[in-house]
Amino acid sequence: MKVVKFGGSSLADGPAVNHALSIIKSDPERQVIVVSAPGKRFENDIKVTDLLIKYAQAALAQADEKMQALQQEIFNRYVAIADYFGLASSDLTAIKQQLAALPQAAYPTKQYLLGAFKAHGERLNAQLISLILQKQGLKARYVDPKEAGIKVTGTPNNATVLPESYAYLEQFNYQADEKLIFPGFFGFTLAGHIATFSRGGSDITGAILARGFHARLYENFTDVDAIFAANPAVVDHPKPIKVMTYREMRELSYAGFSVFHDEALIPAIGGSIPINVKNTAHPDHPGTMIVPEKGFVPSQIVTGIASGKHFSALYMHKYLLNKENGFTLKILEILNKYGVPYEHMPSGIDDITIIFDRHKLTDELIDAICEDVQNAVNPDRLEWINDYAITMIVGEGMQSHNAISGIIAALANKVHVSMVNQGASEISVMIGTPKKDADLAVSAIYDYFFN
Amino acid sequence: MKVVKFGGSSLADGPAVNHALSIIKSDPERQVIVVSAPGKRFENDIKVTDLLIKYAQAALAQADEKMQALQQEIFNRYVAIADYFGLASSDLTAIKQQLAALPQAAYPTKQYLLGAFKAHGERLNAQLISLILQKQGLKARYVDPKEAGIKVTGTPNNATVLPESYAYLEQFNYQADEKLIFPGFFGFTLAGHIATFSRGGSDITGAILARGFHARLYENFTDVDAIFAANPAVVDHPKPIKVMTYREMRELSYAGFSVFHDEALIPAIGGSIPINVKNTAHPDHPGTMIVPEKGFVPSQIVTGIASGKHFSALYMHKYLLNKENGFTLKILEILNKYGVPYEHMPSGIDDITIIFDRHKLTDELIDAICEDVQNAVNPDRLEWINDYAITMIVGEGMQSHNAISGIIAALANKVHVSMVNQGASEISVMIGTPKKDADLAVSAIYDYFFN
Repeated sequence: MKVVKFGGSSLADGPAVNHALSIIKSDPERQVIVVSAPGKRFENDIKVTDLLIKYAQAALAQADEKMQALQQEIFNRYVAIADYFGLASSDLTAIKQQLAALPQAAYPTKQYLLGAFKAHGERLNAQLISLILQKQGLKARYVDPKEAGIKVTGTPNNATVLPESYAYLEQFNYQADEKLIFPGFFGFTLAGHIATFSRGGSDITGAILARGFHARLYENFTDVDAIFAANPAVVDHPKPIKVMTYREMRELSYAGFSVFHDEALIPAIGGSIPINVKNTAHPDHPGTMIVPEKGFVPSQIVTGIASGKHFSALYMHKYLLNKENGFTLKILEILNKYGVPYEHMPSGIDDITIIFDRHKLTDELIDAICEDVQNAVNPDRLEWINDYAITMIVGEGMQSHNAISGIIAALANKVHVSMVNQGASEISVMIGTPKKDADLAVSAIYDYFFN
Repeated sequence: MKVVKFGGSSLADGPAVNHALSIIKSDPERQVIVVSAPGKRFENDIKVTDLLIKYAQAALAQADEKMQALQQEIFNRYVAIADYFGLASSDLTAIKQQLAALPQAAYPTKQYLLGAFKAHGERLNAQLISLILQKQGLKARYVDPKEAGIKVTGTPNNATVLPESYAYLEQFNYQADEKLIFPGFFGFTLAGHIATFSRGGSDITGAILARGFHARLYENFTDVDAIFAANPAVVDHPKPIKVMTYREMRELSYAGFSVFHDEALIPAIGGSIPINVKNTAHPDHPGTMIVPEKGFVPSQIVTGIASGKHFSALYMHKYLLNKENGFTLKILEILNKYGVPYEHMPSGIDDITIIFDRHKLTDELIDAICEDVQNAVNPDRLEWINDYAITMIVGEGMQSHNAISGIIAALANKVHVSMVNQGASEISVMIGTPKKDADLAVSAIYDYFFN
């Protein structure tokens, strides 16, 4: 049995849904289907999830007219898909009612309200697709996460699955010839409220179901033929990755490979479920397999190269720093006070650089942190470096090859490297550069290993 | 004016002292002399400082007979030097009395007792050398750190100089043709007790005096012709370093270059005093100059390569580690609880390695730390790596050259490199290897850059 997940662009309108359904129907193993909310039909279109966010904001602002308009706009997206398949308008009554009922329901907090609104993009789409399949004579059933027992933490817009979910899913009864249509993106808290995963979280639902149902394969349909060895916007026609391991995917997604949601790897790893990232448009293309490390034999040194430009760094120098007990502890206590996580902390003999995800910082936070650090540890020098990019070079094959020497040779006299960090995992090398050099680093390293 | 410091092996017996005095007398600029305690005269000899530690232990144990024997053994060392110069036994009365009075005096704690005993190796030797010079007709004066105002922290065996010392030294009056003989290694707390620097701390006294007296040069006489680019026990006839910067010395001393005490760099840096490490046996040899970074023009890429084998590491892996706020904070709080400092903390995407100085740990501490860390952060994997060496490759010239590429090339297929860390200082690269590969790493990198 396979779990199959479709992204929003694969379900944006009637023809797209029809194509997705043909993929489902072409393989009887494709039994558990996870659907996203309808995505963009054209470049400047608005995703249903984004319309739902506006709808939630209008509800919070009690802007009745706006609410009505948005409710209608969202409903029309489902109507358009239903019309394509010739459904009767009475078939959509339940969907219309659920959409209209959203502002009336009670929510513990505004954040829960937002989560519940967002979740309905998937929830209503899954119901609709189930109706379509039934109308086409297939044995299809909509399954709500509540019914299946997908239990999540009480963090309404950034939930994490609770382990008991897997026990519930193992007990879930279904028939051998039945298609189960699940909405992605959300689950229910122990108190019974809807909570969504982070954005793009339908990947996570698919992985949870694949693990819970002990699927043979988790097929993740998206809009690219494969995951590529480098960003096609940086490298001309990069090589597709045929097979990669979970941890290669994880390390590449850290620095910008966003095809597959990194949190979705956890259930897949837990259940050792292979993942196949495929293109809805070319379902016969083999796509990219993401597999367990065990038994994996790398066929090349480097699997992929990714670059993230959203970093900043705090540099400190203090003489005999390493003889000063608790120096770093004081700094981490300050970061903890402001709720700011750090990414990496490479250190020299008398200096330390703390690297941050710039998205998690504001200018005010940076000022406050620098001031507190200055007062707490009184470094000889303290410098905030806004311009920081991290490039990850990843490959299981790097364990048995001295890849770092090639990497450095590729960058020599081209790129200003301020940090090289080969961690203990030994399947990756991390490089720090100014942002302007990051693309050059990716293409130089790509050329070295692939051309 | 120059401050001149002699190490213990340069003052071990009469002929050695006579040679040191000839060096002092050969240059009228050599006006402030810092002396160590008499060192080893032959391979299995015992340094006076070590005899004083035994003497202190006997005093603490109230072992009268042992005390008498040790007191006599120590005194005999000074008598032997005095005899060489034909001093009368009456000249040594004060030295004998001070040595005998040590067990009678009152000390705030046992640690202060130990510090005071140790300090007398230098204190009595400086008095003796002053007497010898006076007998030879020179204008020489013994200056006690109390008189000069060398004020230190109340940590009796690991003191740090207090900044007011420099103000006292600037006001110290002496004549242009007068030699001032200072004992190294100790100062006085604000409460008036003797406290010593860490072992080898006469280097520190010399640097404090050089800064306080605004010396033109700090000559540090030891038993090697120069500081070498690599350990002569590892590399055959390594190149001597003619000139290096303070921070090059600092980074090399971190990983094992022990010719010059790293804490002694701080006063020299504060006063921008150039340091000349010279060989007592070959005073005309230029030795090694250690100079400020400002205006320094490197004449080579790599200045020196050092390796320290006294490290261990704690490796942890946890999926989505970087999304877990406070992970490292919890670990540092545990280290702080046990008073254990860490050295470096390189991290990958989902793993972190914490490197420790093994000298600062016991097996019991390692067990306790691993257990607490396991309970506090529950990593997927936790591993203690006893076998860890750090090799530092250091050079101001590395700032403008991509030295790391040569370093890695030199190690390829020879050495298992588990960490490469080029910090922000950019004058050094730090490499982690198993201990067995450390010497090989040093010689391979040396060959690459020097041969």
